[in-house]
Amino acid sequence: MRDEEHAVGSAGRTGPDRPADLVIEGCTALVHGTDGAIRFEEDRAIVVRDGAIADVTATDAAAALPARERIRARGQLAMPGLINCHTHSPMVALRGIAEDVPAEEWFNDWIWPIESNLTDRVVELGALLACAEMIRGGVTFFADHYFSMDRVAAAVVRGGLRANLGWAYFSSQGEEGRERSLDFALRWNGEAGGRITTSLAPHAPYTVNDADLAATAELARRHELPVHIHAAENRAQTDHSLERSGRTPIATLHRAGLLDVDVLIAHGTGIVEEDLPVLRRGTGRIGVATAPKGYLKFGWDTTPVRALRSIGIPVGLATDGAASNNTLDVWESMTLTALAQKSAERDPRWLTARQALDHATTQSALAAGLGEQVGALAPGRRADLILVDLTGPHVRPLHDLAAALVFSARSADVLTTIVDGRVLMRDRTLLSLDVEEIAGELAAHLPELTDRAHGRRIQEYGAYDAGPGTTH
Amino acid sequence: MRDEEHAVGSAGRTGPDRPADLVIEGCTALVHGTDGAIRFEEDRAIVVRDGAIADVTATDAAAALPARERIRARGQLAMPGLINCHTHSPMVALRGIAEDVPAEEWFNDWIWPIESNLTDRVVELGALLACAEMIRGGVTFFADHYFSMDRVAAAVVRGGLRANLGWAYFSSQGEEGRERSLDFALRWNGEAGGRITTSLAPHAPYTVNDADLAATAELARRHELPVHIHAAENRAQTDHSLERSGRTPIATLHRAGLLDVDVLIAHGTGIVEEDLPVLRRGTGRIGVATAPKGYLKFGWDTTPVRALRSIGIPVGLATDGAASNNTLDVWESMTLTALAQKSAERDPRWLTARQALDHATTQSALAAGLGEQVGALAPGRRADLILVDLTGPHVRPLHDLAAALVFSARSADVLTTIVDGRVLMRDRTLLSLDVEEIAGELAAHLPELTDRAHGRRIQEYGAYDAGPGTTH
Repeated sequence: MRDEEHAVGSAGRTGPDRPADLVIEGCTALVHGTDGAIRFEEDRAIVVRDGAIADVTATDAAAALPARERIRARGQLAMPGLINCHTHSPMVALRGIAEDVPAEEWFNDWIWPIESNLTDRVVELGALLACAEMIRGGVTFFADHYFSMDRVAAAVVRGGLRANLGWAYFSSQGEEGRERSLDFALRWNGEAGGRITTSLAPHAPYTVNDADLAATAELARRHELPVHIHAAENRAQTDHSLERSGRTPIATLHRAGLLDVDVLIAHGTGIVEEDLPVLRRGTGRIGVATAPKGYLKFGWDTTPVRALRSIGIPVGLATDGAASNNTLDVWESMTLTALAQKSAERDPRWLTARQALDHATTQSALAAGLGEQVGALAPGRRADLILVDLTGPHVRPLHDLAAALVFSARSADVLTTIVDGRVLMRDRTLLSLDVEEIAGELAAHLPELTDRAHGRRIQEYGAYDAGPGTTH
Repeated sequence: MRDEEHAVGSAGRTGPDRPADLVIEGCTALVHGTDGAIRFEEDRAIVVRDGAIADVTATDAAAALPARERIRARGQLAMPGLINCHTHSPMVALRGIAEDVPAEEWFNDWIWPIESNLTDRVVELGALLACAEMIRGGVTFFADHYFSMDRVAAAVVRGGLRANLGWAYFSSQGEEGRERSLDFALRWNGEAGGRITTSLAPHAPYTVNDADLAATAELARRHELPVHIHAAENRAQTDHSLERSGRTPIATLHRAGLLDVDVLIAHGTGIVEEDLPVLRRGTGRIGVATAPKGYLKFGWDTTPVRALRSIGIPVGLATDGAASNNTLDVWESMTLTALAQKSAERDPRWLTARQALDHATTQSALAAGLGEQVGALAPGRRADLILVDLTGPHVRPLHDLAAALVFSARSADVLTTIVDGRVLMRDRTLLSLDVEEIAGELAAHLPELTDRAHGRRIQEYGAYDAGPGTTH
């Protein structure tokens, strides 16, 4: 139906013989075998129709194919667009504002006081700047968890990315927070031509109480919505939770029914051995997002990827917000995930370059809930893909392409970013957004945004206890 | 004298009123206060004459100054060029060849067999490609430790970088290795208009025996040459050394007299508590080079920077060779040093962005032996500097410039690289080297280079014991 509408509306022809919307030719393609293993194919053409990948074939085979647009990509690698499985995109407005401090100070003295100054316009400008940064870094899909999410959705519409959006809430907001999150999720799910999906977004088990978590699970079931939540962000949270309630944060999610709905857990660096059978028994689609840069910065452990893999839980790559991670650079997260995992396990054979690419593609798509739609260059998948320059001196010679991508290349090597078949960046030039305009307007709002003289904060970290109750 | 020669030979005028060679104007400048602290000055002009920085002043003050070349650098940051304190530049030819393996396999099954195939031409092509990569990454000075070093010197002459070069040797080569290292050091010291300095380069205490280390120290004293050596690369080496001789690798260097000459120690991740007083008592100029990416990849500890700082030993940034670290990206080393140090100390307040910039500038210059000549934008220092783009979406807004540089910017943001006043890259275009030509010729040599069917290797890791003796 969508095909026909598109064809009638644009080219006036139907069927596979009408011109392709886009043919990318001459590239090396990162594809997945039927067993899921990554392999590289030389001199490939990627045919795009109606926002989806129609074919991945030999360049010669596509040479005669009529197309509205052709990209000659010799010396470039085509791969699935990167997926940012957990971020707070508008927080780019706070990039670098709270450096070299522990998490308690970061939250209580900086972020939560400043966030009491947020306005819709700042959120939208931040999200637009974030979209520009992500498009430049080869990100095609991001899972966002923040406030004023209508403005983030507007930025997604304008910027052209794919996104899963959730409006965050705390128990301290009463029922209103949860209802706003649900209302947003129902209004925006499937919008922007299907590029926007939504989640319910309780903040974390330490800011949302057990009753509200259980109510969230019930809403998720009733409305078939996934849940996106922070949990077991660090080991101290797990220890505190055990002291307070005798349960780990993961056990708290289980008890609330949140492991029996589709759930994306951010961070999980405090996931412990006893959590593994609990996670394994969950009947929902459970994914974990790892954002290693912030864990290194805070001096935390990192996500136990090996243990999660042993129980079949996909771990997607993420950047968290730029106020803690400083960039929304998922390529950097891919490299750091490989490095941090080898280091944490003290095992150079673990988390190989190919495993890192599996996290960046298949596992990220699964964790973020679009495992069938994105994450691979294959017919039928949405045309979310990037072209990466392989000619720079820092990647040559190419003895091992997987290693070159994970350990030598960087986000600045992404030349072209395509989402749903639309080219959002071509040869490093952004086509949907104007950075100077966005950053210029944002700069004018910064004095108000960063004023902390009022002494307010939206929450308190550590001292606040979400408790078992139902009201605040 | 040098000034006058230059002026007579080129402009025909002497004195400070003759045209400057280069004026960079409108930039933000990273400068060091008299206490060594980093600060940022807005709207500065940098005046270059005869390869040195003549002045750092207000843009307005330099507006009327005649100059042969002007670079308008608004929106850019000028900072001292990055220094790669330990690398094996020709090993870029082996980038990615031995991934996801422990150090023993990396040496014994891959690197040392392949290095028995090295030719002068491969070394030169590798060094040229490495220079191209480093210029693109904002490196202006590198300390290299390898074989066929005449060919590396030739690459330095052609590429235009500054370098400290040492020809590596093992005790298994007999006296010939040490003599070749000395001969090279004496021939090339001060060449390329002073851009090349040299070191004696014994490989490591586990491949060079005590007598040869002592002979090296004696040569260093007699010829006033520094020494560049691997030591305590990892904790296992320290443990093995203690088992074998009752001494740590650092104690072995001390016993040989190598801590009483100027010495650059690569890695030192196996430096232990008992080494600190030994290092503190050394009367030479001791520096340590840290290359954190490889340590993470191998699952090693990282260099104990905090302990070394407590005894006043400068720690410079390094990449090691691309066969282990995959890039020669010192910017990445700066970021990873901050992250790895915070993580290792589990202290988010340690190794702040400003400390990382201190390592990248002052401490690297000291460690690599040019603490008075480079490492700061100050009158009289050599004009080794880079211009960094501050307009990308991933660094905006700029709440904290130091944090933006260390945690948000990356080597690809370096627009312009200048060494000794000569522009080697301008707006990302390399001016002294042609990557396609170099990489193309190198590719033709790779089948022979990587052939391991012969079963030879230049050394053996672990099994070989340099021992206390004098001959092999």
